[in-house]
Amino acid sequence: MTSQDARTSETGGPIGWHKDYVTGSRPDLRVPVRRVHLTNGQDVRLYDTSGPYTDPAVETDVRRGLQPLRENWIIGRGDTEEYAGRPMRPEDDGIKHTSPRGGLKNLDAVFPGRPRQPRRGRGGAAVTQLAYARRGEITEEMEYVALRENVSPETVREEIAAGRAVLPANVNHPEIEPMIIGKKFLVKVNANIGNSAVTSSIEEEVEKMTWATRWGADTVMDLSTGRNIHTTREWVLRNSPVPIGTVPLYQALEKVDGKAEELTWEIYKDTVIEQAEQGVDYMTVHAGVLLRYVPLTARRKTGIVSRGGSIMAAWCLAHHKESFLYENFEELCEILAAYDVTYSLGDGLRPGSIADANDEAQFAELKTLGELNTIAKRHNVQTMIEGPGHVPMHKIKENIDLQQEICEEAPFYTLGPLTTDVAPAYDHITSGIGAAMIAWWGTAMLCYVTPKEHLGLPDRDDVKTGVITYKIAAHAADLAKGHPGAQEWDDALSDARFEFRWEDQFNLALDPDTARAFHDATLPAEPAKTAHFCSMCGPKFCSMKISQDIRREHGGDLELDPEAGMAQKSQEFAAAGNRVYLPIAE
Amino acid sequence: MTSQDARTSETGGPIGWHKDYVTGSRPDLRVPVRRVHLTNGQDVRLYDTSGPYTDPAVETDVRRGLQPLRENWIIGRGDTEEYAGRPMRPEDDGIKHTSPRGGLKNLDAVFPGRPRQPRRGRGGAAVTQLAYARRGEITEEMEYVALRENVSPETVREEIAAGRAVLPANVNHPEIEPMIIGKKFLVKVNANIGNSAVTSSIEEEVEKMTWATRWGADTVMDLSTGRNIHTTREWVLRNSPVPIGTVPLYQALEKVDGKAEELTWEIYKDTVIEQAEQGVDYMTVHAGVLLRYVPLTARRKTGIVSRGGSIMAAWCLAHHKESFLYENFEELCEILAAYDVTYSLGDGLRPGSIADANDEAQFAELKTLGELNTIAKRHNVQTMIEGPGHVPMHKIKENIDLQQEICEEAPFYTLGPLTTDVAPAYDHITSGIGAAMIAWWGTAMLCYVTPKEHLGLPDRDDVKTGVITYKIAAHAADLAKGHPGAQEWDDALSDARFEFRWEDQFNLALDPDTARAFHDATLPAEPAKTAHFCSMCGPKFCSMKISQDIRREHGGDLELDPEAGMAQKSQEFAAAGNRVYLPIAE
Repeated sequence: MTSQDARTSETGGPIGWHKDYVTGSRPDLRVPVRRVHLTNGQDVRLYDTSGPYTDPAVETDVRRGLQPLRENWIIGRGDTEEYAGRPMRPEDDGIKHTSPRGGLKNLDAVFPGRPRQPRRGRGGAAVTQLAYARRGEITEEMEYVALRENVSPETVREEIAAGRAVLPANVNHPEIEPMIIGKKFLVKVNANIGNSAVTSSIEEEVEKMTWATRWGADTVMDLSTGRNIHTTREWVLRNSPVPIGTVPLYQALEKVDGKAEELTWEIYKDTVIEQAEQGVDYMTVHAGVLLRYVPLTARRKTGIVSRGGSIMAAWCLAHHKESFLYENFEELCEILAAYDVTYSLGDGLRPGSIADANDEAQFAELKTLGELNTIAKRHNVQTMIEGPGHVPMHKIKENIDLQQEICEEAPFYTLGPLTTDVAPAYDHITSGIGAAMIAWWGTAMLCYVTPKEHLGLPDRDDVKTGVITYKIAAHAADLAKGHPGAQEWDDALSDARFEFRWEDQFNLALDPDTARAFHDATLPAEPAKTAHFCSMCGPKFCSMKISQDIRREHGGDLELDPEAGMAQKSQEFAAAGNRVYLPIAE
Repeated sequence: MTSQDARTSETGGPIGWHKDYVTGSRPDLRVPVRRVHLTNGQDVRLYDTSGPYTDPAVETDVRRGLQPLRENWIIGRGDTEEYAGRPMRPEDDGIKHTSPRGGLKNLDAVFPGRPRQPRRGRGGAAVTQLAYARRGEITEEMEYVALRENVSPETVREEIAAGRAVLPANVNHPEIEPMIIGKKFLVKVNANIGNSAVTSSIEEEVEKMTWATRWGADTVMDLSTGRNIHTTREWVLRNSPVPIGTVPLYQALEKVDGKAEELTWEIYKDTVIEQAEQGVDYMTVHAGVLLRYVPLTARRKTGIVSRGGSIMAAWCLAHHKESFLYENFEELCEILAAYDVTYSLGDGLRPGSIADANDEAQFAELKTLGELNTIAKRHNVQTMIEGPGHVPMHKIKENIDLQQEICEEAPFYTLGPLTTDVAPAYDHITSGIGAAMIAWWGTAMLCYVTPKEHLGLPDRDDVKTGVITYKIAAHAADLAKGHPGAQEWDDALSDARFEFRWEDQFNLALDPDTARAFHDATLPAEPAKTAHFCSMCGPKFCSMKISQDIRREHGGDLELDPEAGMAQKSQEFAAAGNRVYLPIAE
């Protein structure tokens, strides 16, 4: 591990918190942190996902994209090569020969930033973090996440080598700030964005991405299904400081006009290469939906609720053949290995209701995902496994325990789970409950759910609410797992609360803006921010204040000899006028 | 149990859901239910806490109060008597001799409704549901909650007799619709309201009460600490269809100008009688904060965070004497028994931060609460035990397990617990996670936390958000406990979702208004409410639609002989044109 001395801290302005960096073994290895300056002179360092957008020293321009931080590291390894790449075609953006060239009205038709040729493993070599880790190599990316997570680079390498963690980092996405997903590390949160055939624009999606990472999203999935799917993704990738995931099946389906039965391995494969060349860091592949599993869903309450799962089920039924994803899985592994695209093996048969949780269909697919995980690892492809869905609390643990057993501890990446079906408009909460629990028990990354789940596409506010709810679930799990350092954050905030350092409490909060606004809604005046009480109880009833007074009057040594100490302290207390708090002004 | 035939259903209007009643063994025993009419002709019955306010057939007037539903039952038992009662004094409303008669500007100085003399057990008899249950009597209140909970009246009686459940119902609060709190029953939710010295009015508090019960609060605690404390409570009680809880210590402290050391048993006792005569159904009593426990808190991160706990700690230290609540506990039991006021034994030393969870101070007090529980039961006083607080997930189960063991399965009534300290403004969520878990493991009632916790007083929106978050936690726990009938609600909603019955989905939702508004925000047109897709995926990608098509095309009998069935069905599928969904219009 890089010693403390090797790190330099570039401190910034006097405002509550600011972007800072911890530098590793080379000057271009700078890990961002959010440094909160407390009014008592202390300093709290928090994990930061917001990218250069929160660094006033960096000029960002959505039309040029972010700096390719990792480019020299990738080139330096000498195992990749640039090549001409697959030419972009109109149908990549869902544009038919018969239709006018619509869409793209809000931004340029193509991404105007730095042109770049795609890169891949020389001679099809597996240029994955898994391959390096297995060879005993500690990459710059591994050192980066070690600094980020406060663990040794060797721990990072071991976890990746064992398949217990993934470091999603496509060689064509050099802009990312590397992060790691695994149960030994901080629990991560993914935010989904994406336009659909019905609504939303490219600009909105790029803004949602930066907004989601601003609040703490560790990765972002672009689930666009409408027009401009290629171009939207290009803009998102070039501007994203976090790994980007996709479901290539969605785009492939667009290319066959939404007719599942017309999908072919060739169209799918071409789409995967298209996206790998753009820099997608991980791809959801629903290769576990087998023909023989489809009938298991026929009597479910909510059938198949995964889009990818239902598309593959329809294809299997239409051809009465085994899934082309399953049949061509080895070839797919070879493609992904050459770009270091990480598998996110999709749970196409996940339950969509409490009634369907943990049923035969779900667990049959999980077993197949276990087999696929083994194959992927043989090809040195990093792999995580997706999980449900809708699961009542008493059935959650079985999910993570089975997944860990069947998939040899590959990182679990779950959607929620939602612990009840009855609260549409509050499914960030129904699922935040399940997410916290399953993360405590070992899930490595949580896919957020927004208040709009089941009802509509999330807007900016929904994205923020979803991310913050899931950061709460993730941090609660970090605490429950006893993650080193996790409780320091809580302790710092609780100290600030107990000592009435209101500004510190706000600045340490997951959402300083809202915490401050809520406080000011009741007690707006500036003096209230230094008051030794708040609006909830008023000065007479403030337990914190009484408690502080007790401590001040009686010292911290009461417990050494309670009886003796108490008698003496009681006298002192009386002598001081029996005042534990100030009388309220009439 | 009353047979199904004995119940009459008074059906109402055609709108999505309406208030209905299930009538028991006597015509004045009418249990409210929310009856949701589905568009497929089915009917779903949900638990209803909203009182007469949602019944168009009942005229309510906040100045007259609700009808005294239970009055004839109470009188009929013949074991209580009316008496003159304690005269109200200016200091009951916090009005000092030296200060002008302020406050009360928004409503009448006293409650204008039906004057009524207080009532108590004849000759000090214990007129508690516990006493009746132990004698083998099934009261009207017990039959009422049996109908409400869909269990037998004998089950209700047994649980109360064993001390595993409480039915808070002061003889001076005849307006309530009886409800029960115990681990064998539906998990309940309490909402706190109350003005403080700093802000809020009587009108606001009454409105918050009706608003909280409208969204599902099962009980309401009036934690007022400011002026007009007596009058506010009177208005709240006379208009409340749910049991009302208080912390008498808050008012007692007001009477001694906020000087804890000037509190006496006589002032406290007088306040308890004042509130018991008004009709308070349960009272939080911090009798477990013993002198010798106070030093245990001195080195805590956040000391004592319970208001009641800190007041009693200050009193103990000031006098260097044992708590007057503890010393006079038997006499207090006799008072409460004569009105059937239920104890809520307060956890004055609950942790206020993750760092302080499950510490010596907390568990020392819990042991004392166990002793007090035994004493209370000896006096036939119904008793529940309050629980924390701030507790990380891995320490939650120990709380409920210890409480159940030490307090002989008396109902646990917990505040959250909050599973992390770092998200002020989102503590409904940090605590909703802990609440769902602890309720699954046996907590009988959850005290809600609103987004304003730690920051300010909740407004109307905060109350709604807090209640709904906690109804989610409670229902998730009901599901996890396998409460009979709990899943029917989820199943009905999931059926509606799968069958694109949007209006049914809204009407079955915990919050129909918000669910409908969120849907309409993306697809406002009326046809979208019958559309077989939604804005999230659009028509081409709708997994529910594809899944439905699979079921329609392939029938529900696929699993009978998968291989044979599949081949045949595949041919049929092809013959039908391989269409599992309609092409999107260009």
